[in-house]
Amino acid sequence: MIKVLVIGAGAIGAFYGALLAKAGAEVSVVCRSDYDQVKQHGFIIDSHPLGRWSFIPAQVLKSAADFEGEADYILLCTKVIPGLDRVALVRPAVAENTAIVFIQNGVEIEQEMRDAFPNNEVVSGLAFICCNRVSPGKILHLAYGRLALGNLPNGVSEKTAQLCELLNQSGIDCNLNENIVTGRWQKCVWNAPFNPLSVLSGGLPTLDILQTQESFVRSIMQEVCDIAAAAGHPLPDGIVDTNIEHTYAMPPYKTSMLLDYENGQPMETEAILGNALRAAQRLGVAVPHLESVYALMKLRELKLRTQ
Amino acid sequence: MIKVLVIGAGAIGAFYGALLAKAGAEVSVVCRSDYDQVKQHGFIIDSHPLGRWSFIPAQVLKSAADFEGEADYILLCTKVIPGLDRVALVRPAVAENTAIVFIQNGVEIEQEMRDAFPNNEVVSGLAFICCNRVSPGKILHLAYGRLALGNLPNGVSEKTAQLCELLNQSGIDCNLNENIVTGRWQKCVWNAPFNPLSVLSGGLPTLDILQTQESFVRSIMQEVCDIAAAAGHPLPDGIVDTNIEHTYAMPPYKTSMLLDYENGQPMETEAILGNALRAAQRLGVAVPHLESVYALMKLRELKLRTQ
Repeated sequence: MIKVLVIGAGAIGAFYGALLAKAGAEVSVVCRSDYDQVKQHGFIIDSHPLGRWSFIPAQVLKSAADFEGEADYILLCTKVIPGLDRVALVRPAVAENTAIVFIQNGVEIEQEMRDAFPNNEVVSGLAFICCNRVSPGKILHLAYGRLALGNLPNGVSEKTAQLCELLNQSGIDCNLNENIVTGRWQKCVWNAPFNPLSVLSGGLPTLDILQTQESFVRSIMQEVCDIAAAAGHPLPDGIVDTNIEHTYAMPPYKTSMLLDYENGQPMETEAILGNALRAAQRLGVAVPHLESVYALMKLRELKLRTQ
Repeated sequence: MIKVLVIGAGAIGAFYGALLAKAGAEVSVVCRSDYDQVKQHGFIIDSHPLGRWSFIPAQVLKSAADFEGEADYILLCTKVIPGLDRVALVRPAVAENTAIVFIQNGVEIEQEMRDAFPNNEVVSGLAFICCNRVSPGKILHLAYGRLALGNLPNGVSEKTAQLCELLNQSGIDCNLNENIVTGRWQKCVWNAPFNPLSVLSGGLPTLDILQTQESFVRSIMQEVCDIAAAAGHPLPDGIVDTNIEHTYAMPPYKTSMLLDYENGQPMETEAILGNALRAAQRLGVAVPHLESVYALMKLRELKLRTQ
């Protein structure tokens, strides 16, 4: 039986973990804040597209160090925020044949994991999903859910294909991506404008932002494309147009950063904007709009810390 | 006796009006929101540097159309915000020999007044002052107070020199500036970063902004210098450095835009940022940082209108 350990069983981790359990894997979870509830009652997954079911993990743990057995896959699903050591979270449960899969936001978050685990498969996952933790152990899956998976630095291993197959069996759309790092930059094209603009505007949904400041949004998107190209990951022609059209077609949407902001949680400013900006600086790409948005997010965060 | 009509007797208008009255001018005021209080009791000016005194205007009016007599000077001291027609406010009281003096924030706010009153002296005033209306008719003058005056399009008339002299007699520092339009751009170098950044950060004082995002602040300042130069108003070398040093030396300061924001009042986004940006577009100057800050202010304002 395939053994999976989910580290960071918030909305995303619990949801994909529950799908893998549904497909027949033995799924354990490390969850800190909701430990007591989950230990006693497991999770309730309430998915608009897939229905409602209960997910009882094989092991419910406070730390990966307590995990018993050998995981075929670790799914790391925490947010990527300063002060949270992703390597340290994962290390105690990494065995010889464990594939480390991180389903996380941001760009240039790969190298740290590859350096720490040079002899393990490291798999990068990108989730396109609208999914919230509504209370301890209760996960509401509103829409979407597609997951893209690919090995680092590129390609797709058999083991990754097997994980993808399992997820597809469970009813969610999972794709393999031979160039998942490019996929990360591609996702950043949307994230880099809409996440911070939703926060800095004080809470506007995506459609309002787009309808009134489309050219500003496009400038930021283009800068992300410029960085990606300089980093050796040229994005498809017309990707900015596609993102704009797609966003006009979406229902008004609250970004993940806005939800974190409204809930007083740390935001992924560094993973999404800071890392993109540092790449730009390293590669000599001018990104003044992105730079402005990042600076303003840092000021907003400073104010939040001091108020 | 010199007759002065102050239009827009908020903190700035009441303060300079009170100084002119102290120096012996006959000063009337148009004030809308505090009309009843001021009509009955006049103003109380509480100035840290100059002491406390009462200012009883010669006429207290709801509209310039009610003004009796002929004003030597009109002091227009409203904010510069969309929907407030500066020409219409002033027009009913403009006589043949009336000089129209506007003590207001922003750049490129001159032409409208010059076009409307081609046969009158039009004088541009810049106040460097920290002064608030604390309650109806009560004005608190905390610090600074310097006023710069100059005729449009440039030069200084005898009449302007006379007004300057009166203000100096009253105890405040008033200078004449032969190139007051350049002076407006010069003031914008400070206003363009600190006003919007204080709002978009959620209320940080100037020192926190500077200590954490100095290079961003410098980028915006430099862009204002670039526009000013392209508009035929080159600013002194080293003006960015001077502004940075000066701001480090200031006590932590809440900008006027932040005060408006906190008080739910309209902000001078268009007068300060929008006009600068439109000048840049007209003149073909690249100002991506300023553009970003302006776009974010427009989003913030949109959110304020809809919440």
